[in-house]
Amino acid sequence: MYRSHTCGELRESDINKMVTLSGWVQTIRDKGFVIWVDLRDRYGITQLVFDEDRSFSVLLEQARSLGREFVIQVSGNVIERASKNPNIPTGTIEILVTELIVLNESLLPPFTIEDKTDGGEDIRMKYRYLDIRRNPVKNNLIFRSKVAMEVRKYLSEQGFIEVETPYLIKSTPEGARDFVVPSRMNKGQFYALPQSPQTFKQLLMVGGMDKYFQIVKCFRDEDLRADRQPEFTQIDCEMAFVGQEDILNAFEGLTKHLLKEIKGVDYTNAFPRMTYDDAMATYGNDKPDIRFGMEFGELNAVTQHKDFGVFNKAELVIGIAVPEANSYTRKEIDKLVDWVKRPQVGALGMIYSRCNDDGTYKSSVDKFYDQDDLAKWAGITGAKPGDLICVLSGDKNRVRTQLSALRMELAERLGLRDPEEFAPLWIVDFPLLELDEETGHYHAMHHPFTSPKPGQLGLLDSDPGAVKANAYDLVLNGNEIGGGSIRIHDKDLQSTMFKHLGFTPEEAKAQFGFLMDAFQYGAPPHGGIAFGLDRLVAILGGQETIRDFIAFPKNNSGRDVMIDAPAPIDEEQLKELNLKLDL
Amino acid sequence: MYRSHTCGELRESDINKMVTLSGWVQTIRDKGFVIWVDLRDRYGITQLVFDEDRSFSVLLEQARSLGREFVIQVSGNVIERASKNPNIPTGTIEILVTELIVLNESLLPPFTIEDKTDGGEDIRMKYRYLDIRRNPVKNNLIFRSKVAMEVRKYLSEQGFIEVETPYLIKSTPEGARDFVVPSRMNKGQFYALPQSPQTFKQLLMVGGMDKYFQIVKCFRDEDLRADRQPEFTQIDCEMAFVGQEDILNAFEGLTKHLLKEIKGVDYTNAFPRMTYDDAMATYGNDKPDIRFGMEFGELNAVTQHKDFGVFNKAELVIGIAVPEANSYTRKEIDKLVDWVKRPQVGALGMIYSRCNDDGTYKSSVDKFYDQDDLAKWAGITGAKPGDLICVLSGDKNRVRTQLSALRMELAERLGLRDPEEFAPLWIVDFPLLELDEETGHYHAMHHPFTSPKPGQLGLLDSDPGAVKANAYDLVLNGNEIGGGSIRIHDKDLQSTMFKHLGFTPEEAKAQFGFLMDAFQYGAPPHGGIAFGLDRLVAILGGQETIRDFIAFPKNNSGRDVMIDAPAPIDEEQLKELNLKLDL
Repeated sequence: MYRSHTCGELRESDINKMVTLSGWVQTIRDKGFVIWVDLRDRYGITQLVFDEDRSFSVLLEQARSLGREFVIQVSGNVIERASKNPNIPTGTIEILVTELIVLNESLLPPFTIEDKTDGGEDIRMKYRYLDIRRNPVKNNLIFRSKVAMEVRKYLSEQGFIEVETPYLIKSTPEGARDFVVPSRMNKGQFYALPQSPQTFKQLLMVGGMDKYFQIVKCFRDEDLRADRQPEFTQIDCEMAFVGQEDILNAFEGLTKHLLKEIKGVDYTNAFPRMTYDDAMATYGNDKPDIRFGMEFGELNAVTQHKDFGVFNKAELVIGIAVPEANSYTRKEIDKLVDWVKRPQVGALGMIYSRCNDDGTYKSSVDKFYDQDDLAKWAGITGAKPGDLICVLSGDKNRVRTQLSALRMELAERLGLRDPEEFAPLWIVDFPLLELDEETGHYHAMHHPFTSPKPGQLGLLDSDPGAVKANAYDLVLNGNEIGGGSIRIHDKDLQSTMFKHLGFTPEEAKAQFGFLMDAFQYGAPPHGGIAFGLDRLVAILGGQETIRDFIAFPKNNSGRDVMIDAPAPIDEEQLKELNLKLDL
Repeated sequence: MYRSHTCGELRESDINKMVTLSGWVQTIRDKGFVIWVDLRDRYGITQLVFDEDRSFSVLLEQARSLGREFVIQVSGNVIERASKNPNIPTGTIEILVTELIVLNESLLPPFTIEDKTDGGEDIRMKYRYLDIRRNPVKNNLIFRSKVAMEVRKYLSEQGFIEVETPYLIKSTPEGARDFVVPSRMNKGQFYALPQSPQTFKQLLMVGGMDKYFQIVKCFRDEDLRADRQPEFTQIDCEMAFVGQEDILNAFEGLTKHLLKEIKGVDYTNAFPRMTYDDAMATYGNDKPDIRFGMEFGELNAVTQHKDFGVFNKAELVIGIAVPEANSYTRKEIDKLVDWVKRPQVGALGMIYSRCNDDGTYKSSVDKFYDQDDLAKWAGITGAKPGDLICVLSGDKNRVRTQLSALRMELAERLGLRDPEEFAPLWIVDFPLLELDEETGHYHAMHHPFTSPKPGQLGLLDSDPGAVKANAYDLVLNGNEIGGGSIRIHDKDLQSTMFKHLGFTPEEAKAQFGFLMDAFQYGAPPHGGIAFGLDRLVAILGGQETIRDFIAFPKNNSGRDVMIDAPAPIDEEQLKELNLKLDL
């Protein structure tokens, strides 16, 4: 038996017990006549003591030969600590060691195993097994496990059945790129790894499963942007005999359960809802962070038809009231102007108006706008004395995106994004289709199985971009944590959709024939949602980087630098798969 | 709102309620003046009634136009049923329908959606979404979900953390064949899908995670035997600072929990344990079914050195006492002899001895063995009057396998394999290495990370086959449901093992360098186990075919016949992956 207790559980009530502990050497403090060793395991740290008066000298020698991260087993007596440490739960006791066994030695680790480590991202990833010993990473993984468990508990209690769908499926050129898997037994053919279990969960609804969920890995072979992973985890859900309202209620319930169980936040009100159009107009963004205000004010009516040409020729003039930012110096404001002009944001400039405490205004365009004009700006943006109004103008879609970026940046600078505050928001009535500016074609904004709003089918030919879908996203603190839709369950409507998305009937049949077939045999109305677990966990954990919540993440080239994958394979293996490299 | 209740919940106490139900039309019985429709959903069946006296005639016409598997929504009044059906929970009530909406029509399904269907395996797999509507399949999937949830609950309560390990890893030519995934971003390189998360769970132990589990898909590109799947699900577990006894206790706890929660079986005793050698000697099998006896009796001492040449030249003569089989006719016994001589079993013949009720014996070799001899056979095999002793002889390993097959066949015929009885058994002390008869090389019986028993390292050179491992299997009703080992945690020992398994140091480094590196930084003693969830669920469900417990299984060619995968991919896709077909 390697241990009678963990390193996190001994207390004053255990004093005088003989115990055995195992763990890693965190620190050694050698005062000559006494040596203290901090012993660490997953559960905590316990102080060991070896001293000249009470320990055999051979034991002191042994303790002296230990190094950081050695794995040891000790037995000894729990004693009261002379100098107590109120910062750790075991801080009132220590172990007077009577036996020490080195279970394994350790080289000096390449970075310190401390909450704040000296290791950079690259080295931490290469030695991820050491990184995981650090509290922040370890706690993130435990936190993730807890969130997943609570999801399962809640959904199971609500009658959802977790069904495992297959990983070796069929490639569909539509959507993102698939990872494919050559089949040895079926020469020249390939499986694909699922981008999501979408079609399978719909088939489960056709199969009468009624309420399905699964926490499942999904795969996308995309060029990786920061904080994207080629494999990611989804909480995938589907329900039959439901409309949008049923889904929203069911998963508002799940989200409230998680906020309560995981964060202790009792969110009793209904989650606010906003249409996609309103979100774009008010926040320039379909996943607005509503923990703070700075809603967009549309200023065309009060800024145009004056002599300021920039505004006059703009499609849209919009501003936000930045709270208590009138104190910004001229230099700070200039920096802000530089910030919006960076290529990543792309604004041509920024106009501002200071709202002075005495009720007067001072703008960068005083030449064109008088105090009455500026008072109207303040009225529309909701600016109060002490605020700073920032105004951008230009093409509608672009300027909204630019002002959204500025709004988020200012919120960050002003500390308005409190990680312990949770502001959920449903975005509803998404457009069904999205114009691909490169090809000029429309494609499905969510996916081709999303149903249009009733009565809007006629618009598909005349004004495809105006058709709204039974599609919704759940946004939390400015991040999309879930999204879904009510699906098409009618074969003819699904065929119409495929046609509008540019599939020939043959292509539709080859790729989704099984789903179309299934719709002929009594498909119920159904819909669902999928949550990104990686992001959900990160946000609940008060962080924004998903990588820190994944045990073994890949880097931006899709590599696992620890195991050094991907890697070349044997010629023999290629041959068996009937493949040749074509480099 | 599509429904106020499900089709399984209305009772007499609901009489006079107005309700709305949705579901599938199971059956229609049209008596002219009254029409009954059975409406089905996941939760049950509710009878709908339309009658001339109480319903508008248009409603009767509507009901008459329904077909099997139509999806409908009805509203109506819950009324008492005249002729009650005690076989279903809703059998005392029916719904007098006042409104009927057809939500979706259905073609006539290709097989009946009944517990006993007229559909064969192939057609059921092609239309799996219809097959899932049938109770036996639906209930299996719900059962599986429940088992998985109980596993998670129990292990979480025991302090295990579920950690997701990656699916895109690195190919290791050792062991079974990997499925590989070409990397587009890393030209000419491939990921592999995990055969198990073995190395990652060991790294999590190095990382101090202490207790890990995961219910996880694993992949093996093997030629599929019956009831094997290219993707299968594992309950994967690992613990640090443990010896074999700790693991056995922990997972005996899990198994008892499942037996209790899932089957209501209170198994309070410790699970029996048997060494691999004993299991082979007693049952000819390392996964013996101990729900019944028929242990092997070794008869060399009492059968050899007589005049029966067949036995004299045999390495091993073994027999089993088949309970109450003395009643078998000569013809039945001849058939049994034919059965053991089939190529699948491969015995050259079978000797028997009848144990008569009067205490006498009658054998097929009375010429060579007298009553005293036969009494000794009975003594050794434990035969009682009324039993039949069956004896095989030959090469030790082969004859044990043959007699094991006969024992299982007879148990099946005699109805001794009660699916509602559960007989767990630990098999311990497995050999570390196994001789590959084709190549003459030894390879790891479990995997190359399994530790040898202490003190047996010396045998590795002199008698590799004799080295025992800290390896164990959990057997339930004649099926291996779990297997694991205490791992090597010492870098030098791991190197030695790789060497003995025929890896050059370069190969070992290329494939497992990251693990060897990790062992340098304070690897704790650790070990684990993995359960095959598909099989575990099937056995707990009292069945032996895993396919019926998988939502969308593949056939023996690794094909999903429903979605028709695998399939060819676009030339364009191949090009992006820098691959060419080489057919």
